[in-house]
Amino acid sequence: MVTGCPRADLDEVGALTAFGVATVHEAIGRSGYLGPLIRPVYLGSRIGGTAVTVICWPGDNLMIHAAVEQCGPGDIMVVTTTSPSADGAFGELLATALQRRGVRGLVTTGGVRDVAELHAMGFPVFSAAVSAQGTVKATAGAVNVPVSIGGQPVCPGDAIIADDDGVVVVQRTGVAAALAAAKARADREDVSRAAFRRGELGLDRYGLRSVLSEQGVEYLDYESYLGKGGQT
Amino acid sequence: MVTGCPRADLDEVGALTAFGVATVHEAIGRSGYLGPLIRPVYLGSRIGGTAVTVICWPGDNLMIHAAVEQCGPGDIMVVTTTSPSADGAFGELLATALQRRGVRGLVTTGGVRDVAELHAMGFPVFSAAVSAQGTVKATAGAVNVPVSIGGQPVCPGDAIIADDDGVVVVQRTGVAAALAAAKARADREDVSRAAFRRGELGLDRYGLRSVLSEQGVEYLDYESYLGKGGQT
Amino acid sequence: MVTGCPRADLDEVGALTAFGVATVHEAIGRSGYLGPLIRPVYLGSRIGGTAVTVICWPGDNLMIHAAVEQCGPGDIMVVTTTSPSADGAFGELLATALQRRGVRGLVTTGGVRDVAELHAMGFPVFSAAVSAQGTVKATAGAVNVPVSIGGQPVCPGDAIIADDDGVVVVQRTGVAAALAAAKARADREDVSRAAFRRGELGLDRYGLRSVLSEQGVEYLDYESYLGKGGQT
Amino acid sequence: MVTGCPRADLDEVGALTAFGVATVHEAIGRSGYLGPLIRPVYLGSRIGGTAVTVICWPGDNLMIHAAVEQCGPGDIMVVTTTSPSADGAFGELLATALQRRGVRGLVTTGGVRDVAELHAMGFPVFSAAVSAQGTVKATAGAVNVPVSIGGQPVCPGDAIIADDDGVVVVQRTGVAAALAAAKARADREDVSRAAFRRGELGLDRYGLRSVLSEQGVEYLDYESYLGKGGQT
Amino acid sequence: MVTGCPRADLDEVGALTAFGVATVHEAIGRSGYLGPLIRPVYLGSRIGGTAVTVICWPGDNLMIHAAVEQCGPGDIMVVTTTSPSADGAFGELLATALQRRGVRGLVTTGGVRDVAELHAMGFPVFSAAVSAQGTVKATAGAVNVPVSIGGQPVCPGDAIIADDDGVVVVQRTGVAAALAAAKARADREDVSRAAFRRGELGLDRYGLRSVLSEQGVEYLDYESYLGKGGQT
Amino acid sequence: MVTGCPRADLDEVGALTAFGVATVHEAIGRSGYLGPLIRPVYLGSRIGGTAVTVICWPGDNLMIHAAVEQCGPGDIMVVTTTSPSADGAFGELLATALQRRGVRGLVTTGGVRDVAELHAMGFPVFSAAVSAQGTVKATAGAVNVPVSIGGQPVCPGDAIIADDDGVVVVQRTGVAAALAAAKARADREDVSRAAFRRGELGLDRYGLRSVLSEQGVEYLDYESYLGKGGQT
Repeated sequence: MVTGCPRADLDEVGALTAFGVATVHEAIGRSGYLGPLIRPVYLGSRIGGTAVTVICWPGDNLMIHAAVEQCGPGDIMVVTTTSPSADGAFGELLATALQRRGVRGLVTTGGVRDVAELHAMGFPVFSAAVSAQGTVKATAGAVNVPVSIGGQPVCPGDAIIADDDGVVVVQRTGVAAALAAAKARADREDVSRAAFRRGELGLDRYGLRSVLSEQGVEYLDYESYLGKGGQT
Repeated sequence: MVTGCPRADLDEVGALTAFGVATVHEAIGRSGYLGPLIRPVYLGSRIGGTAVTVICWPGDNLMIHAAVEQCGPGDIMVVTTTSPSADGAFGELLATALQRRGVRGLVTTGGVRDVAELHAMGFPVFSAAVSAQGTVKATAGAVNVPVSIGGQPVCPGDAIIADDDGVVVVQRTGVAAALAAAKARADREDVSRAAFRRGELGLDRYGLRSVLSEQGVEYLDYESYLGKGGQT
Repeated sequence: MVTGCPRADLDEVGALTAFGVATVHEAIGRSGYLGPLIRPVYLGSRIGGTAVTVICWPGDNLMIHAAVEQCGPGDIMVVTTTSPSADGAFGELLATALQRRGVRGLVTTGGVRDVAELHAMGFPVFSAAVSAQGTVKATAGAVNVPVSIGGQPVCPGDAIIADDDGVVVVQRTGVAAALAAAKARADREDVSRAAFRRGELGLDRYGLRSVLSEQGVEYLDYESYLGKGGQT
Repeated sequence: MVTGCPRADLDEVGALTAFGVATVHEAIGRSGYLGPLIRPVYLGSRIGGTAVTVICWPGDNLMIHAAVEQCGPGDIMVVTTTSPSADGAFGELLATALQRRGVRGLVTTGGVRDVAELHAMGFPVFSAAVSAQGTVKATAGAVNVPVSIGGQPVCPGDAIIADDDGVVVVQRTGVAAALAAAKARADREDVSRAAFRRGELGLDRYGLRSVLSEQGVEYLDYESYLGKGGQT
Repeated sequence: MVTGCPRADLDEVGALTAFGVATVHEAIGRSGYLGPLIRPVYLGSRIGGTAVTVICWPGDNLMIHAAVEQCGPGDIMVVTTTSPSADGAFGELLATALQRRGVRGLVTTGGVRDVAELHAMGFPVFSAAVSAQGTVKATAGAVNVPVSIGGQPVCPGDAIIADDDGVVVVQRTGVAAALAAAKARADREDVSRAAFRRGELGLDRYGLRSVLSEQGVEYLDYESYLGKGGQT
Repeated sequence: MVTGCPRADLDEVGALTAFGVATVHEAIGRSGYLGPLIRPVYLGSRIGGTAVTVICWPGDNLMIHAAVEQCGPGDIMVVTTTSPSADGAFGELLATALQRRGVRGLVTTGGVRDVAELHAMGFPVFSAAVSAQGTVKATAGAVNVPVSIGGQPVCPGDAIIADDDGVVVVQRTGVAAALAAAKARADREDVSRAAFRRGELGLDRYGLRSVLSEQGVEYLDYESYLGKGGQT
């Protein structure tokens, strides 16, 4: 149980959040994505904040209760378990306690319950499962030590961004650089979007015709393809 | 094919339904939850009723047709297969027949189809899959015998409660006790919710500081943690 | 890379689309369904069009870019990978390029990202995963050759119908016959629906009582069942 | 924790075991099979005995320790968890304790470890996972109450048969009938086997040609098939 | 049910088999592999032969019985189901019938049983599951029409090669070319193997240093890496 | 690509290896286990060595080739991919190159091929999949940077122990302490094993009767259980 961890700057995190998960993931070198198994329990939210990390024993939410005390405004709680567990270790009462402290949402490799209530109270949750199965409060874990989700390390104080595409983590000390890179990427995407709306092709815009050619891709019209024994 | 099974009292089931799946599951001793694989095909409904159970052969919905006749007002049809099958054994036509008889919804370990139509007609379905794959009507199974879903036995006439958190079963003879326990739990949760809104911690409210202490959990401030070689 | 593939007639495809995935699947002899793993990334759309097929290397969307040029009004892009890959090979920029060309949607065994943006721009996507994980543009695949999804072959120019029940493919040369069969089936279903609303049973309507009897299904009232040692 | 449960007769169980899992499953009406997820940790054993059932909390093997005391000669321990858990709740030390008491093996929906040692000591284990992940001894469950695995109820004292095909359960009071049915089936299979060795076809032996005909199956030689537009 | 399908030349298939699944897959352009879900039920065999294809309804092996009659020396039966099914549709009796006819093995996307007996009688089986669950013989499918497994089409008469790495299919008309390509590849591998045994690196042998360089890969010694803030 | 990483002491690693994966995992505080998805491709080996870590793009083994050069005697190569990929990125030729350099085995979250050949040459492999699917050599990754498998960080030079129970990682700087703790634990287990062989119970040996009592576990004989309405 580690207390007083430094956090990423919330203003920078907020600015980064606006770019969304996919753009941020690209901006930091195609890294930090927590994987497709972590999904929003309801669609339509986008949040950003600083990580308070929690490791629980399967079927046990003792450490989530312990971690509430370490949470403050702008935080996002990030929960893992020592082995896979879909149990509903988090629900509306814990969300009430976190919301009171200014926490912006929850990310968990486990399960949550009270989905309708969480939606109604506007507390975004990104989880690997929804489950009503209850948990005990018997076995210790850890709070605010590094965890790993989807092969990506998440450290206390790192920036967490989550939306309908999932969740991305940005190292605490890398938020400013990520912000600059995301802005640059978004600007480039604006130009590409306009070009695509005019009918330009990615093949031309990104110089991919030469890649196809180097890879030996040949163009055959349908009749030639059939003539060469092509399957239909 | 068993007929004339006794049912749980529908008034009591209705009162129990209002507490939702998670609270009922806790109230009956953290049991009866059919597991996280059974999900609503659309979010936002909460139903309660009495079980009519059906066992089908995979890829075959003969017994669902046979079971319709056994269903009456307040029932919820509960379908399993003798081995896992995601096929769309249930759709809008069967829902029409059930709705005509006053049936409140469907729970199935298999698949369903006509999702848009089911949503439009307001017939809640909780299933392990959505699949358009059609089924035959060739092989026998059983109706109104005990089945097991997610490790939980479901008997004909048992109370079934389903919402966005999934599905819970309460034994037919245990509904009154479940109702009393759910009410008591909800009252306690009301008090806890108010406390959490005031900023009280679960650590204090539930007496968990001593558990942490017995488990050997130590508090380290961030500098001390680093000093002891803690990873960041 | 095959160009100039013939397409199914778009008027016929449009008429077929109105019947929905489940009815079309039944109408063509319970075939063509791409399986329950391909799901809409947001509920509530129904599209039909003609297939442009794409095979990508895992983690690589080079061939999607190459395929854009082969797409025209009424097409639906159908993407597979040479081995399973959930990476987000498709997003809002590619959707912009496709929408500009009159493409009606995307079907993929892989992943997509920018879910919120895709929803906002009204570009329906049916995929096996949502993932923000980015891809490279380095390795060749194929465009407009036959692919296979869920055990069903999909050829360029085939009709693709997709809705909340998933995706079905109809062979290019079979659309007219499918249309006639779907219409006939829908008419029969209209009659059945009316009958079910009046309270008629599928057991009687489909002549299933004799099937139950041949299968040896016996009816026992609850008391007799208990008397024979039935479990409760 | 229920003590003194009656057991199936061990002589009858032993005789039944000789027929193997698949034959016993068929003999009792294609039921009792615990499903394909429960696999032997090493191939080549076949055991039969009487069930001592255990329900554990995930990540916790307290109740396995408690159950050892309830086990005697001819028993097979059958373990489930209240929610899915692959943790290695059982290993060589527990196997040593069970072997000392005459227990014949373990069946578990969870995980086991010390695979090499279990093999060396000749203690057969059938599990859903192998995992070295350790467990705690903190939370209560139950011993010798009915459990459910793969949709099949398993009660204390029931007969358990396990081999390379998995595990089947036979109700305690049904072992004698199962034995007679298994013997009859094995005799029929001996005759069929001899017939198949002579070149007879199942189509003829089981009268399936008429089934094919009723189902509308047509025989087409390859040339006719191609002539009708058959795909190749 | 198509009869009299042409087969690939068994001598050529036999010669191709000797190269093993991985080499053949590479030799035909990294295609034809049926995927990692199809595994040998026991390790240590390598077979090659010509495909007799079967499509079964889930939970039903009627068409396997029908297909036996179409099998002859050198064939390998290839079974799929119209939707996923792990049931044990194939066992020792069917293997006896096939072995009598000179069939060399079975490949199935479904399940098999009698694993110990299949091993003892030397009949190799490659399947997605082992399951004792029995099947009925009630619903039609097809024999000797094209099927698709793991995204790869398998046609009657195609060459099938299977070993501990899984299963690969080679088009009937492509076996001779595959044989030449496999031989050439194996020769190249012999030279590479000898080089690797001498200590040569793939980096040099395959000219990969320039690829690394083009991709921007930099070499840093450990101290420099730490100096640049590298994580450890 | 980081070169010249320090390694754990090979003598200490060798001594630690003898205790096996499960004991080492317990000895370091129930941590370091890479999870039940990483399995030996053939049973019966136990290896220990120092990690050379590799991150590959899915479907691409360029970085494995690059990493060979960084491997030396006593190393174990540890491979992950940036997103899940079962492709056969490693086979007998790479194993030949590694074996020549004194490498003791491979651990990978991806797939391997040439299983029979790997077994024959005695090169142990622990992987999440077996797949013949080939890979390209086109996209960069990293060598000898920290990776994460099953939620556990693996750094270059860490000790890796692998046997039939899976794989455990021990931090490079923690091997000596792990060795002492493993020895102590093994000694305790020797005493427990002897006690269990004499018939002592874990309930008594580990003082668990009081835990059961605190948890409210009651003992009921079977008749009393039935009298209280217990299910059978």
